[in-house]
Order: sequence, then C-alpha cells, then structure tokens
Amino acid sequence: MSVLRKEMFELPEGVIYLDGNSLGPLPKGAVQRAARVIETEWGGELIRAWNSAGWMELPRRVGDRIAGLIGAPAGSVATGDTLSIKVYQALAAALKMRPERRVILSDSGNFPSDLYMADGLMRTIDKGYELRSPAPEDVAEAITEEVAVVMLTHVDYRSGRLHDMAAITARAHEMGAVMVWDLAHSAGAVPVDIAGSGAEFAVGCSYKYLNGGPGAPAFIYVRPDVVEGIQPALSGWLGHEAPFAMELGYRPAMSTERMRVGTPPILQLAVLDVALDAWEGVDMGDLRAASQALSERFIAEVEARCPALELASPRDKHARGSQVSFGFAQGYAAMQALIDRGVIGDFRAPNIMRFGFTPLFIDEADVVAAVGILAEVLDGELWRAAKYQTRSRVT
Amino acid sequence: MSVLRKEMFELPEGVIYLDGNSLGPLPKGAVQRAARVIETEWGGELIRAWNSAGWMELPRRVGDRIAGLIGAPAGSVATGDTLSIKVYQALAAALKMRPERRVILSDSGNFPSDLYMADGLMRTIDKGYELRSPAPEDVAEAITEEVAVVMLTHVDYRSGRLHDMAAITARAHEMGAVMVWDLAHSAGAVPVDIAGSGAEFAVGCSYKYLNGGPGAPAFIYVRPDVVEGIQPALSGWLGHEAPFAMELGYRPAMSTERMRVGTPPILQLAVLDVALDAWEGVDMGDLRAASQALSERFIAEVEARCPALELASPRDKHARGSQVSFGFAQGYAAMQALIDRGVIGDFRAPNIMRFGFTPLFIDEADVVAAVGILAEVLDGELWRAAKYQTRSRVT
Repeated sequence: MSVLRKEMFELPEGVIYLDGNSLGPLPKGAVQRAARVIETEWGGELIRAWNSAGWMELPRRVGDRIAGLIGAPAGSVATGDTLSIKVYQALAAALKMRPERRVILSDSGNFPSDLYMADGLMRTIDKGYELRSPAPEDVAEAITEEVAVVMLTHVDYRSGRLHDMAAITARAHEMGAVMVWDLAHSAGAVPVDIAGSGAEFAVGCSYKYLNGGPGAPAFIYVRPDVVEGIQPALSGWLGHEAPFAMELGYRPAMSTERMRVGTPPILQLAVLDVALDAWEGVDMGDLRAASQALSERFIAEVEARCPALELASPRDKHARGSQVSFGFAQGYAAMQALIDRGVIGDFRAPNIMRFGFTPLFIDEADVVAAVGILAEVLDGELWRAAKYQTRSRVT
Repeated sequence: MSVLRKEMFELPEGVIYLDGNSLGPLPKGAVQRAARVIETEWGGELIRAWNSAGWMELPRRVGDRIAGLIGAPAGSVATGDTLSIKVYQALAAALKMRPERRVILSDSGNFPSDLYMADGLMRTIDKGYELRSPAPEDVAEAITEEVAVVMLTHVDYRSGRLHDMAAITARAHEMGAVMVWDLAHSAGAVPVDIAGSGAEFAVGCSYKYLNGGPGAPAFIYVRPDVVEGIQPALSGWLGHEAPFAMELGYRPAMSTERMRVGTPPILQLAVLDVALDAWEGVDMGDLRAASQALSERFIAEVEARCPALELASPRDKHARGSQVSFGFAQGYAAMQALIDRGVIGDFRAPNIMRFGFTPLFIDEADVVAAVGILAEVLDGELWRAAKYQTRSRVT
C-alpha cells in the first residue's frame, strides 16, 4: 500500500528534496502548534502550562510514539537532549554492566560524534578503556570476550550500508557484551524491531526521517528488564523519582524515565509531536518496499545517465538503509550546482554525494526528474563554475 | 532609571506574574520569530537554512548576548543542552584540573539537580570522590585544600539568599580549588561580574529571568585562560574543531565552543534570541535597584497585612537575589488559592511560598495589588477549600 502523503508536508515549489535523511521537511500544522504553545500555553498560562497544557507529560507521550516506530514497548523510550548526550548515557550505563571489561567496540563507519562521545567518556573514567573501530565488515569478527559494549550505527551515514541488527546483537550477547544501537538513520527509514533484537540500548534523533525540525530532541530506548539496574551517569532532576520533592539525594525514576535529565525543550517536543502525526497508520513494511523501489530506480537512472558517478552504497537493496550515495571527485561542487537547480541532497567528505529516499513525500517521478537535473549538471560540467568550488557551506 | 518595559511582553489580563524567576513570560515577537524559523527557514530553505538562515551561528550569537549580561567577554559563553548537562560538563572539566583532589564542595541549599549531576559524575568516575554539602552559611569555612571544586548556586532557589561570589571565589582559589557558579537565579536577576570574580566556570539557564521560554537552552561560561586546556567530557561533534570534516578522532574547537555537544535546538534558540531583545540597554545596576525596591515593598506589605507568613529570605536586601520567600505550613494550598485569583507565584517543598521580582514587567502597583489578594486568601482562609488540598500539580 502506498505510504505517499505529500499533502502532509509543506514542500517548496520547484524543489525535489532528497535530504530528508539529514533534516526532514516541515510537516503541516507545525507552525500552528508552535504558535499555540507559544501564545496560548506559554503566553496565557505561563508557569501553569506545565500542568494545564500537558508539558510535563509531553516527553513521555512523544517517547511512546517513537517507541511505536522502532518496535519498542510503551514506556521504554525517553526523549530529550541531543543524540550525542543519549550515546553517552547509553555507553556509560553499558560499561557499568560489564565492570571487568575494558573495550568499547564500534566501527570506522560510525558517525564521528558517537566515537567522540565514547572518547570523552573513556577519558572521564580514565581506567584504561580502549575504543576499537574496525571496518564495518569486520565488526562481527571483532566481537570478543574482551568487549564490554558494542556500539554501532545501524545504517551508515555515508554509504547507507545496513548492519544486520539481529545477527550482531546475538553475536554480542554470545560474547557477553552489551549492545547499543544508534538508530539515527533507521527510525522512520527502515523497519526496526529493537525489542526483538534483544539489544539493551538504542538511541536516535528525530530531525531526520521523523521530521521533527532543526534541533529536535533525541531519544533513548532501554530494554525493560535492565533499566531498573541502571544508575544513570547523567542523573538530572527530571530523571528523579520525585523531581519536585527537591530531595538532596538522587533516586532514579521508574523505567526509562530515569534517562531524562533536565527541563525538556517544550517547543521542539511539540513540533515533533505534530511531525509524528504523519506516521500514523504507516506500515513500516510498506515504507520499506517504497523506499527500496525509489532507491533502485535512482541507482538505475544514475548509472544509465551519469557515468561519472560511482555507486558508494551497497548494490543489494537489502543491505542498504534508505539512502544512496555516489562517489565523485568533484562531489562538493556538483552537489552545490545540483542544489542551485532545485535538487537537494548533501555532501559528506571526502567525495560522497548523498541522497535520501523518504517515501512519505518522494515518489518515482521525483526520482526520475532529479536524475535528469543531475545528468545536466554532470554532462554540462556545471559544477566547474567558480561559485561552486569554494567550500563556503558548513553542512 | 526605570527598566520597566511591560510593552515588550504579552502579559495576560488579570494576572500579576510573580513567577518570572521560574518561567519568564512571553516576549512580544517570539511567535512571529518562531513562525519565520518554521515556515520560511525550515519550510522554505530546508537543510540549506543551516547556512542561509544563520542557524550554524545562532548558538554563538546567543551566547555572546548572554555573556553581556553576566560580565563575560564575547566568545566565552556556549549555549545549548540543559543546565544539568552544563553542570556536568563544568564539574568534569574542573575535576580534571585538580586530579589529586577528591572532594566536591557544594551546599545543602543548592538546587538538587546540581547535586544529582555531581553524584552521577562521581559514580561514573568511581575513584573515591566525595560530595560535601554543608549549610550555605558554612561553605566558606568548608573550603579546604582537600577540595577540588567548589560548586554553588549563586542565588538560593528556595530562600533567595545570595552567596558572596567574589569572596567565595577568592577563598576557593586561595585553597587551590576550582570554582563553578550556577547562575540559574542570577542571570537577568542581579548584576554578575563573572570575569571579575575569577571563577573558572559558570552555568545557567535561560527560561527564568531571561524569558527564553519553556525548555530554553542552557549556557556555560569558561574563563578564557583555562579553556584551551580542557578536553571536554561530553565531546560531541559540534564541539569539534571541524565538525564537518567527519574525522574519526576528536579535536576540541577553539575557545568555549568546545563545550557545545550536539545539534543545537534552533527553535528554542531563536525564541531566546527574541527574548534577549528585552535586555537591550538595560543597566544591571538600575535593574538591581528596581528589584530591591520591589522586594522591600513586598516584604513590608506582607508583614503588615499577612501575619501568618514568616519571612524565609534574608531580611537584608543586599543578601538576597530577586525573589522573596515566605514560610507557611499551608503554603501549597495557599499558593493554589492565590494562583486561582490571578497572582502567580510558586511553591517549593516543604513549606515555601516563593515570589519573584522581575522589574522588566512588574512594578510597585503590581506588588501592592498582589499582597492585597494574598491577604484576602489568608484572612478568609480560602486555602481551606478542598480543591487546594490535593497536590495535583507537579511543579
């Protein structure tokens, strides 16, 4: 069944947006909801809105909605902070679960911030921890009984390569390691059965496929049977069992609520809540089929019409997430030229042109039209224009 | 000179808002700015807005504006995350600066989340750290050469008692300790000369006196001469020297930018940016004088008209921040009755009725009128109504 629902988004005229994997587009209703939160709730209710407008409940309510998209039970997902913070929380808790081990295993395809956060945590603890980051294809092999935690991003941010969540989690558990999945490029992109995988932790962000807006809050899943044993490293008052009792000592809240930290970003959460409306009734199997059809069509079109580009994603559609990358030495300039012509993808160093496929608002006609413009950019070498040669952009 | 500028805020009819110390009111222009960010920037520019709409610069720009309100130089304040996260960052960095010491000194009047975060950090490091929390008046005495870090909230969230920032910082340095100030109830409330104090770190939130809205981002100041030596514990990609180089190893950004962590909450930052407009041209000395006049008048009126209440704040106006608290056994119920009658303060366990004085939008007529209604509540024992006896509110 089609999952296309372009009418639920504000998509600018003349733009084909193949970057919903980086920042999802604006869902209809978001500006009205933000205005209501600001004018009616904040402006009219002031401090009372924490109760009267349901602000206190918002993080949990939004968490439950995200849970439904990643195969997690209600109450097992906490929202707030940024993905990097959630990585730190998960890793810190995971290391405490294996106090006698000293190795964090990730891979060299992981998003750098995940590796940086591991590094910061290891330096903070300062007890001889080691971070190993082999190539993604060597990860399974590298899971040994030395490993305390396996921390991987499910879908590679550059290539779109998909790790086998079930198999790697099983291997981690076989070796006695704790599993942390980063679902940044998975939530809303591919079917995820996080509970079924048995992984102890998962983290993710909501501004990509979930369309929560710039700087939308992150989330963390904790497997229900392990959460009660966790003393959070980032033990903030809103993860306390009774925040307003103002006790001097920390007592973790029940369930994954203990992974909350400080005062929640109400405006961002409210907008994310609207964005999640677009996911109501979407069957993730249908979404996956649509995504694969789009990416297969894209690859076929590009390979037929743009010979200068080299596929940098797995050719097997089952081994990819919902993005496709092509390598091109002049990729930065070519992407700027393409964006100038209304086809928005993005560039990742050193040479990756990245395109995301988001079947809620992209269809095959978009894909074919986008490749037509890409072919014009490449055939005409339009990327040679001086304005595309300077790296002025920061993203 | 008067700092009153009620016209810059949307204040509901029939409400006297004495809780701007908890959640500041809605600044005019906030809803328009949010709409612009959402519709024009996010909706129209999509991912390009990180550059074209200045989103990448926003955290630093807002940080510089806050710096101006706390006596910090431009470039020394980073924004983002929540206050609890910023406490953790400051504490973790401070402990690394005194690796041979094992004591964190705070006080029992500190906001509980600061103590909880210290606890979480100590448990994460797990090397015999100790948190000492004597009574606020005993802190100076408790600063010994065992102390690695003194971490205090400048203005007590319950009583409004003000620590002597210069004297305590000097004492901490004399004993070789690092100083961390929490300015949650100071920024926008009292004059702060953080650079002049010599403190290494300060943190704060922006949803109280700065009026940034529910869940507005926090900030952290680092003294410029120590920042280059810091390897942040929360080493996220946006604190990296070159986030988009996607290097596998972390290299801290120049200056306090390294205390940034993940993707910034653009909607919240944009609204905070509008809120800071209300501070343009405000002389903090004038603000302090106005705040003291309001609180003195409030105390005098309450003591004349509400004999059941007992002052729980310092009587000396120089020893208070910009709030006044009164103890009353039925304080919770009385505050609910008062709020129902349009005078909004708040309650802090076990028995504190708390009132904030925010001279940008509160004047003496408001104070006198508020006490009149408070006296009615108390004289008529209106708080006895059953609906005020149940603790249904969470804040």
